[in-house]
Amino acid sequence: MLRLSPLSEAQSVLFEDLLRIESISTLPEHREDVRRAAELLVRVATEIGFQARLAETAGHPIVTGELCVDPKAPWVLFYGHYDVQPADPMGSWESPPFEPEIRDGRIYARGVADDKGEVLMNLFAIERLKRTGRLSVNIRLLIEGEEEVGSPSLEPYVKAHQQELSPDAVVISDTTMLGPDRPSLCIGLRGLAGLEVVVQGPRHDLHSGLFGGSLRNPVEALCALLGGLHDDEGRIAVPGFYDQVRPISPAERAQTNDLAFDEEDFLATTGAPALFGEKGFSTPERLWYRPTIEINGMYGGFTGLGRKTIVPAEAVAKITCRLVPDQDPQRILQLVKDYFAARCPSDVRLKFRDEEGTPAAVVDIDHPYVHKAAQALREGFGIEPVFIRMGGSIPVVTTFQEVFHVPVLMMGFGLQEDRFHAPNESFSLAGLSRGIESLEHLYASLGAP
Amino acid sequence: MLRLSPLSEAQSVLFEDLLRIESISTLPEHREDVRRAAELLVRVATEIGFQARLAETAGHPIVTGELCVDPKAPWVLFYGHYDVQPADPMGSWESPPFEPEIRDGRIYARGVADDKGEVLMNLFAIERLKRTGRLSVNIRLLIEGEEEVGSPSLEPYVKAHQQELSPDAVVISDTTMLGPDRPSLCIGLRGLAGLEVVVQGPRHDLHSGLFGGSLRNPVEALCALLGGLHDDEGRIAVPGFYDQVRPISPAERAQTNDLAFDEEDFLATTGAPALFGEKGFSTPERLWYRPTIEINGMYGGFTGLGRKTIVPAEAVAKITCRLVPDQDPQRILQLVKDYFAARCPSDVRLKFRDEEGTPAAVVDIDHPYVHKAAQALREGFGIEPVFIRMGGSIPVVTTFQEVFHVPVLMMGFGLQEDRFHAPNESFSLAGLSRGIESLEHLYASLGAP
Repeated sequence: MLRLSPLSEAQSVLFEDLLRIESISTLPEHREDVRRAAELLVRVATEIGFQARLAETAGHPIVTGELCVDPKAPWVLFYGHYDVQPADPMGSWESPPFEPEIRDGRIYARGVADDKGEVLMNLFAIERLKRTGRLSVNIRLLIEGEEEVGSPSLEPYVKAHQQELSPDAVVISDTTMLGPDRPSLCIGLRGLAGLEVVVQGPRHDLHSGLFGGSLRNPVEALCALLGGLHDDEGRIAVPGFYDQVRPISPAERAQTNDLAFDEEDFLATTGAPALFGEKGFSTPERLWYRPTIEINGMYGGFTGLGRKTIVPAEAVAKITCRLVPDQDPQRILQLVKDYFAARCPSDVRLKFRDEEGTPAAVVDIDHPYVHKAAQALREGFGIEPVFIRMGGSIPVVTTFQEVFHVPVLMMGFGLQEDRFHAPNESFSLAGLSRGIESLEHLYASLGAP
Repeated sequence: MLRLSPLSEAQSVLFEDLLRIESISTLPEHREDVRRAAELLVRVATEIGFQARLAETAGHPIVTGELCVDPKAPWVLFYGHYDVQPADPMGSWESPPFEPEIRDGRIYARGVADDKGEVLMNLFAIERLKRTGRLSVNIRLLIEGEEEVGSPSLEPYVKAHQQELSPDAVVISDTTMLGPDRPSLCIGLRGLAGLEVVVQGPRHDLHSGLFGGSLRNPVEALCALLGGLHDDEGRIAVPGFYDQVRPISPAERAQTNDLAFDEEDFLATTGAPALFGEKGFSTPERLWYRPTIEINGMYGGFTGLGRKTIVPAEAVAKITCRLVPDQDPQRILQLVKDYFAARCPSDVRLKFRDEEGTPAAVVDIDHPYVHKAAQALREGFGIEPVFIRMGGSIPVVTTFQEVFHVPVLMMGFGLQEDRFHAPNESFSLAGLSRGIESLEHLYASLGAP
């Protein structure tokens, strides 16, 4: 059993139990595991005093529930997700992804940083305040199981329950800090536009000796298209891609570059030989203010051990774009498809599938709740917090802003080295401790005068 | 049980038994299956009258044995292979690859065309001649189990047994005909140079939201290199690639274009939207006289179902070149590596692995045995045969030519639509029947005056 120093023994057990559940939302064979994770959270919330329950959806269930300490106090909607990314490549994990292990002050497990750990940190902070009578707000939970598959059920749910949910603020802990001693409030997120591109040549794989030289190879054809997605200066070569991008203001640029972002440290975290990005922008500007287009995966032909001398029948690329204000995801998807269609030779076939889009989101930093959130970080860490943006996408932030018109407080405690979505995902025990303390300050102060 | 009209019942059973064995030489889990196929062939050869046995190697065993009808008659070395390619993608097979099935005058099974069927056709032809006292040559078998993995043991075996093998001619049935009514003697084969190219970026997959835009994506980097392997006119863009290519002579060009190669029919066989190849050459010239570079497979990042928003850690491409006289495989491998090294950006890492090479081979068409082989086809089919070249590579042909300096008679009965190396590999019953008849004429005439 894990014993996590900032937690009670009962909390440690819960923490470990949740991490052990393989709640991988994208894989149909884990459907029951996803539900088990939701049921565990309902039990935890009920024990704290929430009127907690599962809300069924067309996909995985939402954990919801209310904790009302004072009908006149503001309502905070806490949003999180209990589903996780697939664990592959499995061979790269130093300890099994669903058997949490502590090494060198870190807990290793799939989902410990994104987002199970932070969901429990919020619940544990609320529990302590509730027990000691210091909770200044009423809280409603909305913890979904489909964040890693684009949250298809959440927006319909939020819109259908708009009246009853209607919060004064939203709290989310699913963003990262600039560094272990850089408590950060996230005030901007990139959006997402994704699709799969398929290039087909012959009807089936062909012997490369008998047919090679007489046909265009669809893997090479797709490579030629993908290899030109960026120009030599790191700019995206899709025509029109930057048309709607809101320029960085001089104030934003000054504030971002004042953060003394440590490029060397950042590079060391990645293990890449060098950084590379759009010319004319610093690394944090590239990450927070500029859009991207990324090949997340690609395959074609024979990919097993050994050799198979074929002309492959088809090649597939999985692509996502990270979007910034004011890019429209549907328009970006169209531009990307136009890019491929205009360049694809006629001796292969081009197809698109699995399209998806979410716009970027920004938060008003002058709202009093944003000030209180910053103050909570200041007290939790004993360090001056920073306002940052994030390269990642949390599709529901846009939904909350559009439906409720209230501030979304993105107060997360992960670090870049936590390896979100990658093998050996982890979370620091120090972050766990300071995070819970900051969240206690937050929920104690939001409703106070 | 299959009942193959040109075969006896006992032969049909043997044919089916051999096709049922999953002798996939590249997959370690099928090592025992490969041996079982070899043992079956030893049994078949022994029943015909061969002194047959397994010759052990560092890899899979060689089936060898002698059948001497007259010590003064010429010795023919029959070469074939009993190993097969992997069957994936499994989902594309209409009947299971190792459960032979007859549909519309064809036998469907992995290896039925390449090369188990043709090995048995030779043995059955020899059996009939032996039984009826018409065998004009002595025969030595050399049937290997590593052809699909580059024949690593065969050349050492041939060189070690050079004196005792020392044939007057070599017969191989592992080439295709120009069409069902175009009996073909192959007088040229392309060689092969293969390698894997690996491009590595970050140490592990990274969250594309947190890191995307700050690093070069290794899949895109490899795509940019692969996408430029050919220019717009279908020429290979690797500098120096064509330097050693022997030009097509006017006579060869005339002979090739006299064959009335049916491009429309060829295109229909592939299922591709259009043909594409090196400008200035006809399709048979591209296939037989010109070298190729082909991506046989590629993978990088997340290739499972659904989406995983990452910057992948690495990308891999499996590449083979088909070589023509007088290209040196080692030089070609170096030129290909130079191409990648010169173009790969420094912010990703480039590696090569799994290199392999075999030169092309040509046969002297004026040799008397070549004339006899053509006559055997003429009699077996009742149609005038054609001399063709092949795009494929049989590495050992070069070895036999270099070690023995005797003609290598490449007399195969497969067709382009047989889907060598691909799902739904098949062989026509008509080809089976006419092929056995042609081989009977061959083995009956080679040693005759």
